[in-house]
Amino acid sequence: MAKCCIGIDLGGTFTKFIAVGEDRRAGKPLQLPTPSNKGAEGVAAQIAAGVRQVVSSSGLAAEDVLGVGIGSPGPLKISQGIVVATPNIPGMENAPLVKMVSERLGIPAALENDANAAALGEYLCGAGRGGDMVLLTLGTGVGSGIVLDGRILHGRHEMGAELGHMIIVPGGELCGCGQRGCLEQYASATFMARRTARRIREEGVASSLSKVLQKKGEIDARDINEARRAGDKLAAEMWDGAIRCLAQGCVDLCRVFDPDRIVLSGGMTKAGDDLMAPLKKHFKELDWKLMPTPTDIAIASLGSDAGSVGAAGVAWQAFGGA
Amino acid sequence: MAKCCIGIDLGGTFTKFIAVGEDRRAGKPLQLPTPSNKGAEGVAAQIAAGVRQVVSSSGLAAEDVLGVGIGSPGPLKISQGIVVATPNIPGMENAPLVKMVSERLGIPAALENDANAAALGEYLCGAGRGGDMVLLTLGTGVGSGIVLDGRILHGRHEMGAELGHMIIVPGGELCGCGQRGCLEQYASATFMARRTARRIREEGVASSLSKVLQKKGEIDARDINEARRAGDKLAAEMWDGAIRCLAQGCVDLCRVFDPDRIVLSGGMTKAGDDLMAPLKKHFKELDWKLMPTPTDIAIASLGSDAGSVGAAGVAWQAFGGA
Repeated sequence: MAKCCIGIDLGGTFTKFIAVGEDRRAGKPLQLPTPSNKGAEGVAAQIAAGVRQVVSSSGLAAEDVLGVGIGSPGPLKISQGIVVATPNIPGMENAPLVKMVSERLGIPAALENDANAAALGEYLCGAGRGGDMVLLTLGTGVGSGIVLDGRILHGRHEMGAELGHMIIVPGGELCGCGQRGCLEQYASATFMARRTARRIREEGVASSLSKVLQKKGEIDARDINEARRAGDKLAAEMWDGAIRCLAQGCVDLCRVFDPDRIVLSGGMTKAGDDLMAPLKKHFKELDWKLMPTPTDIAIASLGSDAGSVGAAGVAWQAFGGA
Repeated sequence: MAKCCIGIDLGGTFTKFIAVGEDRRAGKPLQLPTPSNKGAEGVAAQIAAGVRQVVSSSGLAAEDVLGVGIGSPGPLKISQGIVVATPNIPGMENAPLVKMVSERLGIPAALENDANAAALGEYLCGAGRGGDMVLLTLGTGVGSGIVLDGRILHGRHEMGAELGHMIIVPGGELCGCGQRGCLEQYASATFMARRTARRIREEGVASSLSKVLQKKGEIDARDINEARRAGDKLAAEMWDGAIRCLAQGCVDLCRVFDPDRIVLSGGMTKAGDDLMAPLKKHFKELDWKLMPTPTDIAIASLGSDAGSVGAAGVAWQAFGGA
């Protein structure tokens, strides 16, 4: 690896590091705990330590590193390099993280939203390779990133690509954002499970999941899929309903962007074909009949490395003349 | 006007021409009938004649014209310069219009979808000036164009920016495209009027509009707004419902693009504040409460010149180094 950029994926529990060369080849990833009691100073110090460790373990010299990219949960002021707040890392309020990291390392740094970074990672090295793509991460909520002509779409006030908050069901479930019927209220693993638990507890709907609920106190997407496979009616209804909403979101994204690919990641995608087969069926039913929609829908391929690889891509775009 | 490009808006009845200089100033527009019985050859000949007329009446020399842009109804193969078909102009099937026009004139030509051209027109010289914008034309259907960083978004298969076919109501009205619940089934002037007429005729809903319907055989958006202003309950319900669906579409577009501006044009916008006041009210109700959405919603300012001005802009981008 002659010249490289280092990507950092800042998470609530761990911070991940990876060096990516001009040939888009990634080195060995490094994972360090994210310090939770030292505020922004502690986070910046840990990032600097991790970068130095990756540099030395890769046999690189400091001058081989063109820059670092930091993917962070938000809200952020991306172009200013400022973390406004991070719900799962205390003491990060209004931290000028880019300045703090680049001063420590003497290397330029750039900031990006973690979902956008993951989208760029899949675009550069994963399932979205070589074309306009939309990433939907079906996890706690529905995260998203949009890459058009190789560039992340931020919106003019850095408030775009919030695809989990497209309104899918008018007057539907109240979302934490204040809207009703947001995609993430239906298609995220967490909210699907929460709605299912509510139907059992509050509406008294009979389901084999009530035993799981009693035992664990909660249920997750995997429980629902397992119950569905075993013939549970409520589980089948909730699973299928979530996927139909997701399919509607995908149809809408095709009407808007006509991308090469919609890439899915996050907890729900562990179900593999149990997700993809009904998704493609619903998509076809909901889609227009004018002509076949050529957009491909695929599962992400980088797994948990997408964020750090994409953050390195952000640095390449900012500092590598890419 | 030293150097200019000429924009052409090809319509079912008229073809419009306008010269636009580098300073984005437009000359006097020209309108000629679109020949309806001479096929693509007749259309190309009329376009060439109109361009020559604009050149001579503007005191330009032929060599001052860098290129012509043609906005056409579709479907088109834009990058190949081919009109696949035009519902309202017979004999245009698979016409290589760009080649036909540029050979006649000895000037390079470029093709664009008419809605996209109108969006670029508003972006360059109208209500969208100077920022990312989405145009929604509320007419027979809901046409649309998206301009990001000054460029029209086509999608990777030239099938993007079909915002009238975003699904707004799951399982809703059947659209001509084969989907259900498309935005245009609710927010276009024509479909709102058609649904209103159906409620009177088929469902027997009482309304002062039944008299208009008996007299004219049909009703339009203006009739509905007038009846609403005079206190008609059904008219108020249909008008408000259409605008609420439009507001939902606008919220979704803000979540996706976070543009500077959403610009509205077409028949419905003649209602002015009777459209904009309820639209802004519904938008605020449906919008997230995380932070105010900074996107401005405005009525288009170029009127029926948007298409030809935008087509000139297409030529400037293609041939003027803009």
